[in-house]
Amino acid sequence: MTAPDTATAVPEPVLLLVPGIIGPTALSADEEEIVDADPRAPQLLVTDLGVTRGEGAFETIGVFDGRIMALRPHLERLQRSATMLEMPALDLDVLERAVRRAVDELPARPEVLVRIFVTPGPEDGAPGAARPTAWVHAKVGPAASPEREGIRVVTLDRGIPSTAPQTSPWLLAGAKTLSYAINMAAQREAARRGAQDCLFVSTDGFVLEAPTSTLLVRRGDAFCTTPPGAGVLPGTSLGTVFEALRADGLTCCEELMTVEDVLTSDGAWLLSSGRLAAPITHLDDRELPVDVELTARLSGAIAGR
Amino acid sequence: MTAPDTATAVPEPVLLLVPGIIGPTALSADEEEIVDADPRAPQLLVTDLGVTRGEGAFETIGVFDGRIMALRPHLERLQRSATMLEMPALDLDVLERAVRRAVDELPARPEVLVRIFVTPGPEDGAPGAARPTAWVHAKVGPAASPEREGIRVVTLDRGIPSTAPQTSPWLLAGAKTLSYAINMAAQREAARRGAQDCLFVSTDGFVLEAPTSTLLVRRGDAFCTTPPGAGVLPGTSLGTVFEALRADGLTCCEELMTVEDVLTSDGAWLLSSGRLAAPITHLDDRELPVDVELTARLSGAIAGR
Repeated sequence: MTAPDTATAVPEPVLLLVPGIIGPTALSADEEEIVDADPRAPQLLVTDLGVTRGEGAFETIGVFDGRIMALRPHLERLQRSATMLEMPALDLDVLERAVRRAVDELPARPEVLVRIFVTPGPEDGAPGAARPTAWVHAKVGPAASPEREGIRVVTLDRGIPSTAPQTSPWLLAGAKTLSYAINMAAQREAARRGAQDCLFVSTDGFVLEAPTSTLLVRRGDAFCTTPPGAGVLPGTSLGTVFEALRADGLTCCEELMTVEDVLTSDGAWLLSSGRLAAPITHLDDRELPVDVELTARLSGAIAGR
Repeated sequence: MTAPDTATAVPEPVLLLVPGIIGPTALSADEEEIVDADPRAPQLLVTDLGVTRGEGAFETIGVFDGRIMALRPHLERLQRSATMLEMPALDLDVLERAVRRAVDELPARPEVLVRIFVTPGPEDGAPGAARPTAWVHAKVGPAASPEREGIRVVTLDRGIPSTAPQTSPWLLAGAKTLSYAINMAAQREAARRGAQDCLFVSTDGFVLEAPTSTLLVRRGDAFCTTPPGAGVLPGTSLGTVFEALRADGLTCCEELMTVEDVLTSDGAWLLSSGRLAAPITHLDDRELPVDVELTARLSGAIAGR
């Protein structure tokens, strides 16, 4: 056995608690807005609504070669999710400082994932109730994952129509909440079917998004995604990709697509901060074209490379 | 100002952690299966999947004058929810001991609520991963709540068809998971509409359940609820009520009902361990008949009185 190589060993995650999540007025006299915490020690009360009710919002931000990607869009999306949960306005500047500090405190690595979590706080009557709980967690990201080469995907019914955000906002379609049990169960179902992920389909027959990533479909020189109005998350990685494609003179659009539209497309990807642009090699066992060069360009855009 | 009356002051909740949740073989040498913990101190890692993904199951058990109601049915339902989340088999005997111990440790009060929580544990790589996290939390229950006298209820679309459990088990209909953000958002929507609760309706037009309670509908001498196969939780309070009604020679049934069926019924209730049998006085602003005596009998059955 050789001694571990400390230069390449995976560093411990960094955890910062953010008592200043709704601004300085909610802080007590001796409290700092951001506090270092031990990620290996318990930090949450069992009465936190984030765990007892899955209430709260989160974001996952990619950091590539030290560049924090789409930080402000992530923070703004976090605020939108929190608003859908009727939480108070968040101090996004404090969160920005917390994210930057977490990245600074973690030893530099080519890929880092920073997650932000915010919950409504503990239940009524519990200590600390009436102020949201917030923390930032930074860890070294996945080394080049096989998913980035291509993934098999199956379609799964999401159970809600694409009109749900308009007709039934309480279903929280389009909010990135901590209530992700269905997303995780759907990914397990996909694994059972021999796939690496699933693509959710609305009850009215339109493709939506994957449990943790956004759909991008190519048709000739046009690149399309599902409109956020259909109840999907507005993808931050997608925003970056659309900027890059538009700069190349390509057409980007948001429109409702059927499964058949994707099957007959010129290629499709699932985009996320961790996975970058993962090309879909098979959708429900039907092969899709994969463009390795274009995929590298899309992934490069997401990573800011 | 008078000194607080310590005899009637609300006692602190009791919190027990349950490292023995999947049995003694998962315990280290010096670990006990049930451990007292401080409910005012953090006990959960921020990487617990119960908070990062809303994965996990829970139960709320009513304790009336020291009698723990429907303990085994609650434990068995917890196991069913955990199984739907593909968690390992729980040691229900350990959980039963934990519930009884929590009740013993809390100063006696007429009404106590005991909650059991179980999550898949921390994320991969975090300390303590690979064993579920479990805890039991006991607190004094609500004093006679105004809800028990009658509640206004509005119907809200649940977004999924009553056939979801058969066609799309990954939607977890019928599992009591920690991903309750939609349930809470629906209750806030109900409050906005001037109601105390909502009744979920399936996309195919059948009444389902309320976010935290079970529907009971009276039609003459027959008492009906929604079949669990339609994606509702099999109510433990309902089980107790059905037993009492059958003992009185009344008919109990499970069948799909429309909103109109409820509006034209001889009365309807929302049942839960905390709320007992709360009669619905108005459904979508239409008045329903309320039978005070029968309501008292149903609530008495749930409380074992």
